[in-house]
Amino acid sequence: MTAYEIIAKKRDGTDLSPAEIKYFIDGYTTGIIPDYQMSALLMAIFLKGMNESEYKALTHTFLHSGQIINLNRVSGIKVDKHSTGGVGDKVSIILAPIVAAAGVPVPMISGRSLGHSGGTLDKLESIFGFRVDYTVNEFIQKTEKINVCLIGQTAELAPADKKIYALRDVTATIQSIPLIAASIMSKKIAEGIDALVLDVKTGVGAFMTDYEQAQRLANILIRIGEDSGKKTVAYITDMNNPLGNTVGNWLEILECIDCLHGNGPDDLMEITHQLAGTMIFLGNMADSIEAGIKISKNMIQNGNAWDKFIQIVQEQEGDLGIIRNPESYPQSKCKSDYHSPMSGWVESINAYEVGMTAVQLGAGRQKNTDLVDYKAGIRFYKKAGQKVEEGSLLFTIFTDNEDIIETATERLSCSIRIVPQPTPPPKLILNYIDEANL
Amino acid sequence: MTAYEIIAKKRDGTDLSPAEIKYFIDGYTTGIIPDYQMSALLMAIFLKGMNESEYKALTHTFLHSGQIINLNRVSGIKVDKHSTGGVGDKVSIILAPIVAAAGVPVPMISGRSLGHSGGTLDKLESIFGFRVDYTVNEFIQKTEKINVCLIGQTAELAPADKKIYALRDVTATIQSIPLIAASIMSKKIAEGIDALVLDVKTGVGAFMTDYEQAQRLANILIRIGEDSGKKTVAYITDMNNPLGNTVGNWLEILECIDCLHGNGPDDLMEITHQLAGTMIFLGNMADSIEAGIKISKNMIQNGNAWDKFIQIVQEQEGDLGIIRNPESYPQSKCKSDYHSPMSGWVESINAYEVGMTAVQLGAGRQKNTDLVDYKAGIRFYKKAGQKVEEGSLLFTIFTDNEDIIETATERLSCSIRIVPQPTPPPKLILNYIDEANL
Repeated sequence: MTAYEIIAKKRDGTDLSPAEIKYFIDGYTTGIIPDYQMSALLMAIFLKGMNESEYKALTHTFLHSGQIINLNRVSGIKVDKHSTGGVGDKVSIILAPIVAAAGVPVPMISGRSLGHSGGTLDKLESIFGFRVDYTVNEFIQKTEKINVCLIGQTAELAPADKKIYALRDVTATIQSIPLIAASIMSKKIAEGIDALVLDVKTGVGAFMTDYEQAQRLANILIRIGEDSGKKTVAYITDMNNPLGNTVGNWLEILECIDCLHGNGPDDLMEITHQLAGTMIFLGNMADSIEAGIKISKNMIQNGNAWDKFIQIVQEQEGDLGIIRNPESYPQSKCKSDYHSPMSGWVESINAYEVGMTAVQLGAGRQKNTDLVDYKAGIRFYKKAGQKVEEGSLLFTIFTDNEDIIETATERLSCSIRIVPQPTPPPKLILNYIDEANL
Repeated sequence: MTAYEIIAKKRDGTDLSPAEIKYFIDGYTTGIIPDYQMSALLMAIFLKGMNESEYKALTHTFLHSGQIINLNRVSGIKVDKHSTGGVGDKVSIILAPIVAAAGVPVPMISGRSLGHSGGTLDKLESIFGFRVDYTVNEFIQKTEKINVCLIGQTAELAPADKKIYALRDVTATIQSIPLIAASIMSKKIAEGIDALVLDVKTGVGAFMTDYEQAQRLANILIRIGEDSGKKTVAYITDMNNPLGNTVGNWLEILECIDCLHGNGPDDLMEITHQLAGTMIFLGNMADSIEAGIKISKNMIQNGNAWDKFIQIVQEQEGDLGIIRNPESYPQSKCKSDYHSPMSGWVESINAYEVGMTAVQLGAGRQKNTDLVDYKAGIRFYKKAGQKVEEGSLLFTIFTDNEDIIETATERLSCSIRIVPQPTPPPKLILNYIDEANL
């Protein structure tokens, strides 16, 4: 068995054995197989695909390239949620305190902003002092102490995936369903969870723009999860419009504070409660998803979710003062309002355009090494399905870069489609999939 | 335009513009674009192909990455021959002196052994002292002086192709028709030739085992050549059986000496005269290919080709003593004869198996860095179509490695298929293609 022969097999559409996959991935991780052979194999996988046995073996190899966290010390059924990424998707930050408050441990390893999509870690770090770089032992201790902890991928977890992801990022091989699936699931299984709720997003603002592709990814994620003994279920949700009213790190934290106080927008709360309720059900704290959703809503009403959020910020060394007095947060140098040039109904707001504009404003990264401006972003005042009057406020832009305002305003105004007749808000939850209906 | 975007385009089957191809190849050659992005693009090209505009642009970029030899000082129409490689293919060494003796200048840049296939340079270097590493200026001087020179690819010619070929070799992306075509033609055009005769081999011992593939390659090679203003014609020839009676560097030089003395085997001389005759015709020294073939045969009969060969060896610093007294060449430590276990007719000798066995005996390279044993190889006494008696000598193995003889004998004896009824020798010249019948 040589790296060359394995590349040639996949190139010719022949299935790889688990031993061949392990040989290649381990060889690459340990530096015996060079980047250029790995990238040739990645492109061959991208174009020829992988069957069930192959993507399971790939996940297994990624997983066992590093540490698998043992959360036996934390009592209860540990449940996490994973979203495939979107614009304005701040669900994790609302849902984690809800579910932890309901008694289900939530060990959560999240990601950073990527292209047009935001990242939970960047949002959390907009809270002064908030740390997401704890060691595995600290992660275990904090989860044990307050039932929840949100950190980034550590060097110990699935290092093979980490090294290969960086290579995929520069060789146009990110968007391969088996590679995406193995990358997601190896990290999730390494967290030490018992169950997982997936939010697979589809639409212009998602990485899987096509519904069929999203469904295929969901099916594969569930197969891998169940194969590893983790109860895994998935929702396919709409990501044509931004989720909630804000896009940008600190603006989204402000919106999360509103949500945890019971003042969240309908679309954001619908998805949050559906996912949180499902986690509470899988965590054995409710008899059904519906009962879980009731508990989730109750955790907001009775203030327990808010208390848990405060506990998280405190435990992860965030500045509580800024959470309690958000108006004291530094302000963007420029704020620019945009008013509707016509009356009508908002049919849609193109989430991809909004996400890319937010990156231009400073809220995301064009390159890995870019610094994020936590204050930058956009607040919308109208959403798809809502009526607008001529001259009513549509959005505000926040940025330190005055030069960008004109093009950003132009791009955002073009992303909003206003029609003369009433139009319903988009359906958000498109499908639910579990092992029984794969 | 970024390397990433170009990879993604080709990955998705979109055609690349000449500017994109130039940007990527020049970026790679100058070290701005790394190996791992080049290998991802190579695999995408392998699997998605290239159209006519793309492979012409690729050839053009390869060609202009280095020097283009100016042979204006050499009078006459300069003609070269290129073979896609096979087993026992020593045609260049017989044909170059024939054509040069007929008055057509032959500036020839050849290759080394590769996998199961032999290389003209290795064969020439088995002559003590023979140099193939002259500079471009020396190459021009020698061609001017004796009408012919045979060297290896210098660092100045098509360096982009040289760097990319090395990467293709370790990423399973050699066998791509547009990449093969651009690689061959950029080097040939860089030689400063006016016309080119291609010998595209097909069969088990060729790199294009499939006839249709060989035909496609020939068509593309001709299109590129004609596009560059070089008269280009191609033969598709059979490479199921080894060509001639010997495989192995010095053994093949001995056979060339026989050929130049008029004692060559029929199959080898048929191909040599056809290609040489076509070169003489393209070089304007005959009115037709048939007339060129007559001149070619005459160059052997009148001794002019032999004299030209002696001149080449002398000019390129080879040991004339060993050419005039070949029996004084060092002998292999082991010689092993194999006799036929049955009577019948030889139906075929598997050229691929013979080529791989020759490598094992020491005549070729398993790795780039391997040293070649010039003495090692195989001499056959019977060929496809010939009658054999039980006990008659079929082949002799020459090697310094006694341990390999048993397995080599086994492998070679299995590669020879003997049948009980008469069987015709294989048809060698399968097709002729020029611009008029593409």
